Order: sequence, then structure tokens, then C-alpha cells
Amino acid sequence: MKKKILLTEDFDPVLSAGLSALGYECDQCNGISHDDILKIIPQYYGIIVATRMGVDKEMIDQSPHLKFIARAGSGMENIEVNYAASRLITCINSPEGNSDSVGEHAAGLLLALFHNITRSFMQTIKGQWHVEENRVHELEGKTIAIIGYGNTGRALARKLSSFNMTVLAYDKYLNNYGDSFAKESTMNYVYQAAEIISLHLPLTAETSGMINEQYLQRFSNPFHLINTSRGKIIQHRQLLEAIEKGKIISAGLDVYENENFTMHNQEQRDVFFALNQTGKVIFTPHIAGKSFESKRKIAEILIHKISMLT
Amino acid sequence: MKKKILLTEDFDPVLSAGLSALGYECDQCNGISHDDILKIIPQYYGIIVATRMGVDKEMIDQSPHLKFIARAGSGMENIEVNYAASRLITCINSPEGNSDSVGEHAAGLLLALFHNITRSFMQTIKGQWHVEENRVHELEGKTIAIIGYGNTGRALARKLSSFNMTVLAYDKYLNNYGDSFAKESTMNYVYQAAEIISLHLPLTAETSGMINEQYLQRFSNPFHLINTSRGKIIQHRQLLEAIEKGKIISAGLDVYENENFTMHNQEQRDVFFALNQTGKVIFTPHIAGKSFESKRKIAEILIHKISMLT
Repeated sequence: MKKKILLTEDFDPVLSAGLSALGYECDQCNGISHDDILKIIPQYYGIIVATRMGVDKEMIDQSPHLKFIARAGSGMENIEVNYAASRLITCINSPEGNSDSVGEHAAGLLLALFHNITRSFMQTIKGQWHVEENRVHELEGKTIAIIGYGNTGRALARKLSSFNMTVLAYDKYLNNYGDSFAKESTMNYVYQAAEIISLHLPLTAETSGMINEQYLQRFSNPFHLINTSRGKIIQHRQLLEAIEKGKIISAGLDVYENENFTMHNQEQRDVFFALNQTGKVIFTPHIAGKSFESKRKIAEILIHKISMLT
Repeated sequence: MKKKILLTEDFDPVLSAGLSALGYECDQCNGISHDDILKIIPQYYGIIVATRMGVDKEMIDQSPHLKFIARAGSGMENIEVNYAASRLITCINSPEGNSDSVGEHAAGLLLALFHNITRSFMQTIKGQWHVEENRVHELEGKTIAIIGYGNTGRALARKLSSFNMTVLAYDKYLNNYGDSFAKESTMNYVYQAAEIISLHLPLTAETSGMINEQYLQRFSNPFHLINTSRGKIIQHRQLLEAIEKGKIISAGLDVYENENFTMHNQEQRDVFFALNQTGKVIFTPHIAGKSFESKRKIAEILIHKISMLT
């Protein structure tokens, strides 16, 4: 009997085709609920999730035959990785698959901020023609600090390497990571020198709410902020206060504290409304890594990594 | 008595300071009208204009002492260059000053189109959260053709060199212009291979209205179009038809057939409205080259070039 894999989302078709070629039987259950997974998970050898569905202890406890949990994408905060490991279940992710997409998106947000693209677009379509108030800031010559120098941080550094900027990188958990695209830096130097900060961090107990008032106070100069990693790293109310005080000049956000906008409480609605009212924030709906190309690349990477399992 | 220079716009303050240091006397007449220039121009040795004010034959005829006409920026279509030359008046421009700004802006428009930044921004600020319809296209791996390989075309090629694209360049008036950033190409190859076209052309009798139905028909495949050069190169009605037919997939425009939006006739208003209604065009108000940094660089370049006049 073939080993079965549960696919919980509408992944690129090459994924099920590739897994079938490896001898697995794939069950495609797009958008399946947590409760429905619990009912059927005992029969599965592997499960593949994206952002929407997590794999928690309860699910793992119901899975006597589960040998791997695969994440299409990068962040593993929705998977009980340590608990899975204790049950000898292998956890796989595919951060290499969407790093170019995220790097491009971060560069795009940065150019949109510095070149007033969203603001002047919204004016121009209303027939308002404002040149001087949309005077552009060049990236050329500016200093950006990339915080977290994994796959997406490196991709951004590579994309910016042709813009004649000073690119610094800081990663708490790496050593000797400087390369031809970014200079390894200390946070103390980042606090002094950075004109732009781009976050490329996983969401962990350590990074959750990390960008708060205390963190912001360490910076010598006002700066621009890009976040394409995880929304909960930034406390949105403190981001708003920092923008109002001029500590943060502008921000490009692809991720949010609560990405279920219809479930925002009054506080979250107020803060989001006020952030938009500043006119200094560009928002995109967590699409940085979601390219057509990454969908395919992620599928290919997962097939490769699953093929390496014994 | 000092030689006098007429400054017709609010240029960077280093310009008048630098010219004074060269021994000139500068008269700052921001926003001066054509008629008022005619009254005072006989006393001037030089005049410096930007986009707004032209220098026509009538003005040149009134200027017995004029030795140079300087253009803060690149395009010379608003200056009677040949007529000035026949009167031994030197014409100076400063395309090196804003090429980085234009190159960044073209890259920014391209990323905004491929990553759906303006569209998803306008949805997200209304609380609409659409991921799948904003799925991103990566620049990575795509083929762009840069038409016109002067200062701004080269700047764009350099900025894109880190995005792992195929960058082609075509320039009718250059030879052996391929470099490490772009492959010299024929238009025939561009018609076959280009997925993106970025225009970097001056406005001349030859380029005016150049992008028409006949031109577009030569392309084998639908493509994306970026124009940060001159609006009159594209016939907007034919751009609209090409978008409606799917011949042009999307467009990023910084320049327009008629940039005096308040003076648009009904046809121009209708076409602009319809272009916006397609949801496939990003518009910015001719700001690509207007960075804070270019304002300063243009002033420095003009000082240098004026200092070289005998």
C-alpha cells in the first residue's frame, strides 16, 4: 500500500505530480479545517501545510504514522517543531523557494516609499498633479541595515547590490556571514548608522513584539522601516507613535500583528486607520513571497527534500 | 562689470553660489513668464531653464549678449538648439545629474507593477485583503529591453543588474554600446524576446508618437511598458487599445502626452480615465528625475560645464 500525504492547500500542480512519481499517494484537501484534519490524520505518512493551517500537539498526538510535516514557505511558527522532533517526525520548510520574491518585494516597497509611488499615483488618478511634494529620495548612497541574514535577507542584499548603497547585515545567530553584498555589522553600529531597516526575522518568543519603544530609542537618527517577515515582531501602536514623533520616517509593511482584518478589534482598527492617515505607510497584503514563480519553486524544493527522507 | 546669468526656476542654492564664485552675477527670477524674459534678456550672458520654460527663436533674437543656454535636466526639446548654435550660443544640459533618480524610478515602477504594490495598497487601506488576485510576478528571469541607451537607460540597466534578468539594449544612434549591464540588441530581436520595454528616448520628430499601433504589432508577445522619458512618444489612445486587446499587459507611466492635466480636452480626459479603469497602469506625475539628490547634482554639473566655457 502506498504511503499517503495530506495536502491542505492548493499548491502548484507539480507538487502532487512529483510526490506521486516518488511513489506517494496524495490527498488534496484544499482549505480543510483543523477538526477535519484530526479525523483523518491517523492514516497519513506526511502532511503539507502553508500559512493558514498549523500543526499543533493535538494533531501530532493523533498521528501515529506521521513521519514528516512540510511547510510550503519559510516561517515555522505555526508548527510545533520541538514536539514533532520528540516524536521523531521530521519538519521541512522551503525558505529557498520564495526568497527572491521576498527580496524583490522589499526592494519594491523601499523604492515605492523613496519615490512616492503610491502617494503620487493616488493623487494623479484624481487629476491632482503634485511634483514638488513628491520630490524623490534616491536610494543611491543611503545606508540600509538588514536584520536577520537568512535566505530573504540575503536575497534583498543581492538585489540592492546594484543601487550603490551601504548594505549592513546583522544576525544574532550567525558568525562570519558578511559577503560581497552586505557588511557584517553590530547592532550598536546599526543604531548609529542605519537610515533604513529591513526585517528578515522568524517569529519566535524572542522576536515577538521586539520592535517596541525601547528598541526604537536606541537609534541615533530617524529611519525608514520595511517589514516583509512577520507582523507580530512590531508593536503597531508603538510604530504609530514612532511615526507621529518622527522617529520612523516611513514604513513599508507586508505583514501585520493581526492579518485577519475582518477580526480586528477596535484598538487594531484604530491603529491601522491612524497608520494610514499618516500618509507615510505603504501596506501590501502578505504577498511578498507569494509569486507565481515561488509557488512552483517551493513545490520543487519540497519534492526534493521529501525525496531525501529515508 | 560682471557677466549676468538669469535663473528662471528655484534651483538648488549651490547653483547661484557656485556661479557667483565663478565671477558671475545671478538674477533669481523663479517662475518668470516668457514675456517678462523677453523684456530683460538683452542684458544676459547666460540663461538657465528647467522643464517649464523654453528658449525659442524669439527669445534668442532678443539676446545679443547671450553666450549659453543651460538646461537643468536632460531633454532639450524646449530649446531651439540648432538656431542657438547658428548664433554661436552654447547649449548645455545635465543628463548625468538625474539619471540615477530616473533609473531608480523606472525600477520602482517595474517592481510596483510586477508586485501589485499600488493595487494591493489601495485595497488594503480599505480593509480588503486579497492575496491570490495579487499574486506576484518576479522580475527574476524575465527579459527587459531598454530602448535608448543614454544616461538614464544605462542607469536602469545598472540597477537591474542584480535582479538576474536578461537586459537587452537598443540604441539607433550608438555603436558598440553593449556593456556588462546590457546586451546590445537589434529591434528585430527585441520584438521577439522582450517581456518588458523601458523607454529612454529624447522627444524628437522621429520619436514623437513612435509607439503606435504599427509599432506594437511588431512584437511577438504581450509585454509590460515603462515610460519615464517623454509622454508624447506614446499615443495614449493606442496604448489604451493595446491594453484592452492584451497586447500590452501593464504600463508604468511617469510622463504623458499632455502633462497639463487641467488643460486636458475631452478626448484626453476620456483616455486617461479609461487607462486608469483598466487597473493595469501606474501613474506618477513626472517625478522620476526629480530627486533631492539630483537637484543638487544637476546644479554641480551645470557649474562645472559653465566653468569650462571660455
